[in-house]
Amino acid sequence: MSDSQQQPADDRDELEGLIGTTDEVVRSIKKAIAENRPEAAAELVKPLHAADVADLFEQLSPDERVALVNILGTDIDPEFFSYLDESVREDVIEEFDTKQLATVVNELDSDDAVDLIEDLDAKEQAELLQAVPPEDRALYEDALRYPEESAGRLMSREVATVPSYWSVGETIDYMRSDADLPSTFYDIYVIGPSYRPIGALPVSRLLRTDRPVAVSEIMNTDLKLIPAVMDQENVAFLFRQYGMVSAPVVDDTGRLLGAITVDDVVHVIDEEAEEDLLALGGVGETDFHASITDTALRRVRWLIVTLINTLIASSVISRFDATIEQIVALAILMPIVAAMGGNAGMQVVTVTVRALAMRDLTAGSNVWRVITKELAVAALNSIVFALIMGTVAAVWFSNVPLGLVLGAAMIFNMMWAGLAGTVIPLTLSRLGMDPAISAGPFLTTTTDVLGFFSFLGLATLVLL
Amino acid sequence: MSDSQQQPADDRDELEGLIGTTDEVVRSIKKAIAENRPEAAAELVKPLHAADVADLFEQLSPDERVALVNILGTDIDPEFFSYLDESVREDVIEEFDTKQLATVVNELDSDDAVDLIEDLDAKEQAELLQAVPPEDRALYEDALRYPEESAGRLMSREVATVPSYWSVGETIDYMRSDADLPSTFYDIYVIGPSYRPIGALPVSRLLRTDRPVAVSEIMNTDLKLIPAVMDQENVAFLFRQYGMVSAPVVDDTGRLLGAITVDDVVHVIDEEAEEDLLALGGVGETDFHASITDTALRRVRWLIVTLINTLIASSVISRFDATIEQIVALAILMPIVAAMGGNAGMQVVTVTVRALAMRDLTAGSNVWRVITKELAVAALNSIVFALIMGTVAAVWFSNVPLGLVLGAAMIFNMMWAGLAGTVIPLTLSRLGMDPAISAGPFLTTTTDVLGFFSFLGLATLVLL
Repeated sequence: MSDSQQQPADDRDELEGLIGTTDEVVRSIKKAIAENRPEAAAELVKPLHAADVADLFEQLSPDERVALVNILGTDIDPEFFSYLDESVREDVIEEFDTKQLATVVNELDSDDAVDLIEDLDAKEQAELLQAVPPEDRALYEDALRYPEESAGRLMSREVATVPSYWSVGETIDYMRSDADLPSTFYDIYVIGPSYRPIGALPVSRLLRTDRPVAVSEIMNTDLKLIPAVMDQENVAFLFRQYGMVSAPVVDDTGRLLGAITVDDVVHVIDEEAEEDLLALGGVGETDFHASITDTALRRVRWLIVTLINTLIASSVISRFDATIEQIVALAILMPIVAAMGGNAGMQVVTVTVRALAMRDLTAGSNVWRVITKELAVAALNSIVFALIMGTVAAVWFSNVPLGLVLGAAMIFNMMWAGLAGTVIPLTLSRLGMDPAISAGPFLTTTTDVLGFFSFLGLATLVLL
Repeated sequence: MSDSQQQPADDRDELEGLIGTTDEVVRSIKKAIAENRPEAAAELVKPLHAADVADLFEQLSPDERVALVNILGTDIDPEFFSYLDESVREDVIEEFDTKQLATVVNELDSDDAVDLIEDLDAKEQAELLQAVPPEDRALYEDALRYPEESAGRLMSREVATVPSYWSVGETIDYMRSDADLPSTFYDIYVIGPSYRPIGALPVSRLLRTDRPVAVSEIMNTDLKLIPAVMDQENVAFLFRQYGMVSAPVVDDTGRLLGAITVDDVVHVIDEEAEEDLLALGGVGETDFHASITDTALRRVRWLIVTLINTLIASSVISRFDATIEQIVALAILMPIVAAMGGNAGMQVVTVTVRALAMRDLTAGSNVWRVITKELAVAALNSIVFALIMGTVAAVWFSNVPLGLVLGAAMIFNMMWAGLAGTVIPLTLSRLGMDPAISAGPFLTTTTDVLGFFSFLGLATLVLL
């Protein structure tokens, strides 16, 4: 892992000059806002890329954000909104009136516009949709009809298309004339009857081919047609799996509706990875930019789960209070059994959750191989650690049977962790629940309960 | 979070027909291998995309992989190797002799070839480099001189370039004539004196512009020039931050060396997200496809850390054995204090690690804001849970002072968790260590030790 270690000192040097929002720039802008010098602040923001302005806003306090929005006004690059973190965006949008928002939305590509509109509350959304031109309104309303996080929300409506009977020359002439194309595109879709895409033509290939050649001769025909209702997670999977740069989106009759490009998918990949990471860490969604009360509330769920988990464990321990009273060493050693089982199990859960997310574990054919492998791994490691800890305990308390009991309980609990670490996420996934969220708490409840029960139970039988 | 729930049943339907390696195909191929029908197996593999063949191999047992390699022989699409998981790739490559590998490498783009060569051991690498044409050898040796996981390893050497004084027409004619271009490209780099890139021209824009216009008039000049030694994590950051599709890579004098495209970056983003996820889960690197002994060995490190952590905690408990002997309820309740602190702290660690990875927390300006926010969140939640659990304990054991002691210990430990959850990852990051790997163990050691110490210590003072 040494290659991937974060080395912030080097990092900062490496990106020096490549990113706009250096610490110094942020400090200067904060200072200009604090000292009420709006022109100076605006001047500092001006040269920044829209993405850097978004970054800057994320580093400001809520009051500074409001001040800067008022300073910049409509000078803000509309693209800025696409780069902004959602929880900060809500704050910023509140400072805009409907008319200003409509101007912003007009200047965005349709996918970015939909991304902004979908986060508004129902009333704001209705007002904004009234303020945009009717043809755009229809388009946005149409996009909002698709489920959240679906291909239909992600796609851009602007697509470059040509009929299959055209030549390269005709295509180039058309591209030069037609104004209603996306600002940048990587593939041109070749359209057959009923507006169905039948091929894709990478722009660089079009450029490298002589004018008389027919587009149908040089197009790629192994298209991945993405249904508009497809979940964005599956869209990301397809892009990643096949190394795609863009893909056509179709309705249920196969008609072309729009296209998804890889830059949108990069965001989805980030989001999905973040969701899994945060879920495993017991955080529902990213709350880095959220307020104190929101953050506290969002984290309560997991703490309640932890509390219930430990209450169950405590009630198991309380059944053995007589045993503990006689042998206090048990109270001293029992956290070891629970922790080793819990952590070994979380290793398995993490690997299994990742494999499920990467679709490495969907086929029925490899489930049994994974389970038996994890059991074998657990057997190896549990025996090693049981030997170590059993010896330590026997020496520490000059009590060989106590060491044997500890070792046996550790082997039992770590074997269980190996089994449950695969079976729990797999079962949750089959039941349609997100294993990243629920597998951890389920697992540690069982490793705590079984850890305490096996150790204290065995001790009661053997040592008393 | 309900929107992002995994629903495998739907998933499979959604991707039906879009991915080649369905359960059925995998089963049929396994069957053909088992029944020694090589032609049937080859016939089933033939229509699959290289990425699907890679997927298929990942689902086979080691023996089946060897059998299928021998069946397919040199019919395998070279691209297949770029898609294959590293640990599986090692197995597969062993079945190829140097000459066969040289053929594969020749057919790959230079970045994919380097990706394959860098994983070979020194002897295999030397042999392979002897077997490729001299001009390619120089190119690969050059690439291998850059650090692992650097832009120099990631970039493709094939780049489309034009001088700045050319027109659109000249550029198009040149693209049509010149054969030494990448298979697909999205930007053409405009080159100034000393072969320095001075602009980028999206291919679609070139296509849409009239022939007489000069390329220097329509090129983008806000280039992000990536130094070849830059760490891939920073490359990914720049692509994500600025929504880039390709970027030029330069040497330390600013000369153009090659280009990185977004499809390579998608892999990096996946890798980096996976590293953080697995590290937080206590798994060093992905071991899903690794052998049993390798997997067991890789997981030992974290289990040793857990063992040391719990041994320290146990030694803390043992100092209070006399207290526990008198009040067994303490042994029953003490896991609650440790677990609530540990889990609340891991929530903070997870959010902080993610913010560091996303560079949301590099600026000195927002560190204090984050720490005070987390302390405030911890104060809110610890008071709520201390009230609940204090009451439960007081009622359960009919002992109000015990409830007060428990509540006080919980508040202390959860406040500590809020502080340590931000400060530990930040400090590790400043020291050049990966917070995703080490922050968790550090944190839980402190929350265990302080949890047991504060609860049992306070109990000794107040209740005896």
